Amino acid sequence: MSITIEQARHIVELMMEKDAFSQWLGIRVVDIAPGICQLQMTVGEEMCNGFSIAHGGIPFALADSCCSFSVNAHGRKSLSVETSISQFKGIQVGDTLTCESTEESLGKKIGVYTAIITNQDGVRIAIFKGTYYRSDKRWLEPEDQAAGEAAL
Amino acid sequence: MSITIEQARHIVELMMEKDAFSQWLGIRVVDIAPGICQLQMTVGEEMCNGFSIAHGGIPFALADSCCSFSVNAHGRKSLSVETSISQFKGIQVGDTLTCESTEESLGKKIGVYTAIITNQDGVRIAIFKGTYYRSDKRWLEPEDQAAGEAAL
Amino acid sequence: MSITIEQARHIVELMMEKDAFSQWLGIRVVDIAPGICQLQMTVGEEMCNGFSIAHGGIPFALADSCCSFSVNAHGRKSLSVETSISQFKGIQVGDTLTCESTEESLGKKIGVYTAIITNQDGVRIAIFKGTYYRSDKRWLEPEDQAAGEAAL
Amino acid sequence: MSITIEQARHIVELMMEKDAFSQWLGIRVVDIAPGICQLQMTVGEEMCNGFSIAHGGIPFALADSCCSFSVNAHGRKSLSVETSISQFKGIQVGDTLTCESTEESLGKKIGVYTAIITNQDGVRIAIFKGTYYRSDKRWLEPEDQAAGEAAL
Repeated sequence: MSITIEQARHIVELMMEKDAFSQWLGIRVVDIAPGICQLQMTVGEEMCNGFSIAHGGIPFALADSCCSFSVNAHGRKSLSVETSISQFKGIQVGDTLTCESTEESLGKKIGVYTAIITNQDGVRIAIFKGTYYRSDKRWLEPEDQAAGEAAL
Repeated sequence: MSITIEQARHIVELMMEKDAFSQWLGIRVVDIAPGICQLQMTVGEEMCNGFSIAHGGIPFALADSCCSFSVNAHGRKSLSVETSISQFKGIQVGDTLTCESTEESLGKKIGVYTAIITNQDGVRIAIFKGTYYRSDKRWLEPEDQAAGEAAL
Repeated sequence: MSITIEQARHIVELMMEKDAFSQWLGIRVVDIAPGICQLQMTVGEEMCNGFSIAHGGIPFALADSCCSFSVNAHGRKSLSVETSISQFKGIQVGDTLTCESTEESLGKKIGVYTAIITNQDGVRIAIFKGTYYRSDKRWLEPEDQAAGEAAL
Repeated sequence: MSITIEQARHIVELMMEKDAFSQWLGIRVVDIAPGICQLQMTVGEEMCNGFSIAHGGIPFALADSCCSFSVNAHGRKSLSVETSISQFKGIQVGDTLTCESTEESLGKKIGVYTAIITNQDGVRIAIFKGTYYRSDKRWLEPEDQAAGEAAL
């Protein structure tokens, strides 16, 4: 029983509604499908560190949300077990970041994703890799899934 | 010319003063010395994700600040090149997190740190590993260092 | 039903017997208990890279064996899902490496381990972090476990 | 002074000549250019672990050689500082692995690469991410570079 794009969007809407931190970051969901996600956000002064550039937690959080949405959009509640980021460039206040995920592997228990962050000039800022554990719990109950399909 | 504990504290004060994001997180510097740092923070509702637990970016940011302070406290301006976190337990609203770093290696150009995050019950939440590039730029100019030494 | 030290040793003997690559590396099991392992090996010329130092795959393989033995010694067949290594120092031909693991977390499905590699002079060479998925398959069948316990 | 494809090939020939471990693995250089590399190898019984599949050190070593060749092919002697691998599938004896790198970032001091390993059926086996420190030492002395250019 696979998930439709409409259902994937509904799952990420449910996640974003309660995701106070992604809201604080100003994350916008540009695109979502099972296993794929594109997010954007603009960096504010309140997100900077002692070097007056974005704190390392900011691009990490953006990419973690992006990959988390990607794997959860397959329908099963999934949590990160290991995540890493390599940052190449500093991020300035006012920069608009785009983050796009790639599904490297989707197994029964484990999903692996990478995400690339670029700025408004298309310059690559960072690459993220995340390993997610897929639990047996589902985002949409069978009746919700049926409703979702009916809605299409 | 090595850095004293007093100078290490001064460097981290300078970093925290401008670190708006660490301030937003409510990070408190419990202990600092060259290569070692202990931080604390309490998790608020605004830091949660769609699972109503702390967003993965929160413990990452805490540990990244902790290891960044540790390596910068040696006196040279240093930036992360690669960081990773393995999270074992969910973090609830109201949890008080303690993060403590260990200096795994300090080379001329590269410093490697780990940090362990525990909650108020002493339960381990996550382990972080960070690789930092040490630039030639210094936090304290020679006169500041002399002044710091004189102040002792 | 927890695993005794004797059973942990038996599991790692079973693993080492079939582990042709660990044998080729000349890995010796110095110490083993559920969740803990210490290994040693001496670096040969056939393990070197184009810089005439040990290839990066050598300390990685040593640490991966060490953490894999640690988690499997709990009795359940376990496989790595994500592993990383930070190497600080080059390894010369003839160096004897000691690798010792620490169990950072042991959950129902996921175990997380770190391992430190030192050389014969006690100099730290590398730190490894590994995340392992614990399957439901067991190394010792119930009768074997009973036999193991009887043998004690 | 950038490196030509011919010079990149010459650097990797110099590296492979002395790289006893890559030779033991049976690594073949399929393609090389500055920042890009494709390698192949076939897994032998002597490379297996206690599960009778390839030891985790084998795909790691293949990918580490691949990314190391990629970054060194730019002309400056470069060493890994942090590397990680996520393995999705077991590797059987007799499998032929192909590893191909992507240059995620090339800075003055740091290069970041990913590599994907697939088997003979095109199935993805693992993704690797490596961070390399670029030293000031060069593989080709100015006269060698001139000679290389003249040879073209």
